[in-house]
Amino acid sequence: MFAEIITIGDEILVGQVVDTNSAFIAKRLNEIGVSVYQITSVQDNRDHILQAFKEAESRADLIIVTGGLGPTRDDVTKQAVCEYFQDSLVEDREVLAHVEELFQKHLSTPILDMNRMQALVPSKAIVLMNRQGTAPGMWIKKDKKIFVSLPGVPLEMRELMYGEVIPRVLKEFDRPFILHRTLVTYGVGESTIAHKLEAWEDRLPSYIRLAYLPSLGKVRLRLTAKGPDKNLIVAGVSAEVEKLYGIIGDIILGEEEQGDLELLVGGLLLKRKFTLSTAESCTGGAIAALITSIPGASSYFKGGVVSYATEAKIDILKVSKNTIGEHSVVSSQVAKEMAVGAQQLFKTDFAVATTGNAGPTKGDSDAEVGTVYIAIASPNGVYTYKFMLGNQRDRIVEKAVNKSLELLYKEILKF
Amino acid sequence: MFAEIITIGDEILVGQVVDTNSAFIAKRLNEIGVSVYQITSVQDNRDHILQAFKEAESRADLIIVTGGLGPTRDDVTKQAVCEYFQDSLVEDREVLAHVEELFQKHLSTPILDMNRMQALVPSKAIVLMNRQGTAPGMWIKKDKKIFVSLPGVPLEMRELMYGEVIPRVLKEFDRPFILHRTLVTYGVGESTIAHKLEAWEDRLPSYIRLAYLPSLGKVRLRLTAKGPDKNLIVAGVSAEVEKLYGIIGDIILGEEEQGDLELLVGGLLLKRKFTLSTAESCTGGAIAALITSIPGASSYFKGGVVSYATEAKIDILKVSKNTIGEHSVVSSQVAKEMAVGAQQLFKTDFAVATTGNAGPTKGDSDAEVGTVYIAIASPNGVYTYKFMLGNQRDRIVEKAVNKSLELLYKEILKF
Repeated sequence: MFAEIITIGDEILVGQVVDTNSAFIAKRLNEIGVSVYQITSVQDNRDHILQAFKEAESRADLIIVTGGLGPTRDDVTKQAVCEYFQDSLVEDREVLAHVEELFQKHLSTPILDMNRMQALVPSKAIVLMNRQGTAPGMWIKKDKKIFVSLPGVPLEMRELMYGEVIPRVLKEFDRPFILHRTLVTYGVGESTIAHKLEAWEDRLPSYIRLAYLPSLGKVRLRLTAKGPDKNLIVAGVSAEVEKLYGIIGDIILGEEEQGDLELLVGGLLLKRKFTLSTAESCTGGAIAALITSIPGASSYFKGGVVSYATEAKIDILKVSKNTIGEHSVVSSQVAKEMAVGAQQLFKTDFAVATTGNAGPTKGDSDAEVGTVYIAIASPNGVYTYKFMLGNQRDRIVEKAVNKSLELLYKEILKF
Repeated sequence: MFAEIITIGDEILVGQVVDTNSAFIAKRLNEIGVSVYQITSVQDNRDHILQAFKEAESRADLIIVTGGLGPTRDDVTKQAVCEYFQDSLVEDREVLAHVEELFQKHLSTPILDMNRMQALVPSKAIVLMNRQGTAPGMWIKKDKKIFVSLPGVPLEMRELMYGEVIPRVLKEFDRPFILHRTLVTYGVGESTIAHKLEAWEDRLPSYIRLAYLPSLGKVRLRLTAKGPDKNLIVAGVSAEVEKLYGIIGDIILGEEEQGDLELLVGGLLLKRKFTLSTAESCTGGAIAALITSIPGASSYFKGGVVSYATEAKIDILKVSKNTIGEHSVVSSQVAKEMAVGAQQLFKTDFAVATTGNAGPTKGDSDAEVGTVYIAIASPNGVYTYKFMLGNQRDRIVEKAVNKSLELLYKEILKF
């Protein structure tokens, strides 16, 4: 069985909005054994939508559509759905009551006719109640195919996926089991890894697929297997992952499905009862923001200083003026004193510090654009690392953040 | 003339990766007058790729393909391109020299046969040199249609778009002029805005399209026009924008094409020679990270404190223990003292502070999950605002960050 995702909206096709809905839906479907064959983004245009429906129906059993359900004139999905199923709109009382309640209780503006029209749904559709907004989702069966239409607002789409779509798909379709395990490796290029894995890859069982996903400084190896027998798949993939640890265990940092690095770092700190603080210059608070994106971070993260100005490094983090004078603000020595400064200021076991030049021009230091020093202070001392991270501001910051979390994780692992 | 974008990669269809390449390419094409008809994401699979090529060719004049050009076995795009154009692979000497140089100068691992094979390209293709990586881009003409194949690594794709694809498209195609202007409004729902704009919308010239883009706390109104006469379009859209300011000027904060709020804030600070600092609790450094994402931020941003732990608020930001005892850490009073604390600590004209409960459980305060206080300290005093931002951690933080920048922007505007 296959699914297809169709995202509707001119904003996607003019590049104003990145379509994040598709990835979310695809991930949730994979988790319940549904493979996505294709993702298609089309315009807010009747003919285009109808054509996309027809093509998707010819290939897939489940078609999930997002977008174009709002109350304004540029939203035409509901009309297109109606036309595709040769259906007409009827008023759904429950939706109407919900829309009226939303306006009465939570919105300061009076309800309008166009808001009430959100309660009109195709007569053949099962309504999927959208508690977060006014546009209901729709579930329509045509022969053996299912069409689902969801609002494009991510929050509303997500709630409907979890609360309505997934439970219904589980009931409606027989599904195989799909397993993805993704090993995250650092420091070696994909071709070098592929070369080392050649013999292993030759003997990989045919039901397991391997993919290489290179990105900034890391390569992810994804093993994917699909089949009716869950136990066989879990055991088979496990055996291959074990072999991989045998061949390239020195560069494997962990598995993506266990969570991102900030989650792994948080988990380790929590388990080993350690605390953390940050002192950021070139990363500008991005490390602290990632660390605190994890629920419960307040148990181990005490705080951080974004010491963008040199005076902030001196006044708050107690970096010595002499050190700055001798080595400049972008130096291993300053990174070290920043980390120790944060460790003492926040009274934490670990601290991570960054100082560098993210460009586009040289700042308070002569350091070349792209130069970044990272320091990790631990109960055992402080370690610094130097990196050259290219010449694009956003990339430099992103790479520095990734590197910092990686170094921090490896350091905490030692305790 | 129309373009289509095809992104190739199983990682997109299993939801492991959000396809950001399409939005980038679509935006760049729109800037030079090329409309994107459809975006399609397909698997790393020969048949699927060939089918997508065929369909796109039937609809568009320019087909831009990304992904699947790496050296490992899961990359099959080049073979599919070859087959589609009934072509064969030949070695390109310049690419080979570049790949060899990359390995010699910048990589620590020895070059492998699979790296050298990156220099094989279809004989009919014009090679687009990829200075950032080993996979060359390809430009292939078939009758009057152009196919472009680019690597999927965003950095490499972007450089090739700017350096090779855009200049060639400009030469190859006659293009109309496309203009998007997007007004960002705050505080009122899309249906209320649409209702106010009804009469205006009825009289909108037919060559101008209007779209409503609602998201967290804001609605963007995009006016799009396309045609051969640039002057006519610019003047026509300007006239309509002016009318919009007349009708809903009180809720328009600015135009998206002028940049995001962090850019607008930075521009204002720079122009009016003001400085800024931050004191963040629930937003965990995300405001500082956004502010510092703007090149040149060091001219006006002095630094920030992420005071996650209560002690950090007291020790570093000098929030009074009594205030915390009386009002709890999540209170208007604490937000106020945090903002003033940052303003004094970093000696800045403005400071923004956040304290709240982002959940999932209540922390050092009894405040309900979703409660957020924002304080803006200015040369004239300090103002605080209370918001209830729902119950999803990531959404609460995102909304609090947006609100903070909005309030800050409005405050700086007064000076």
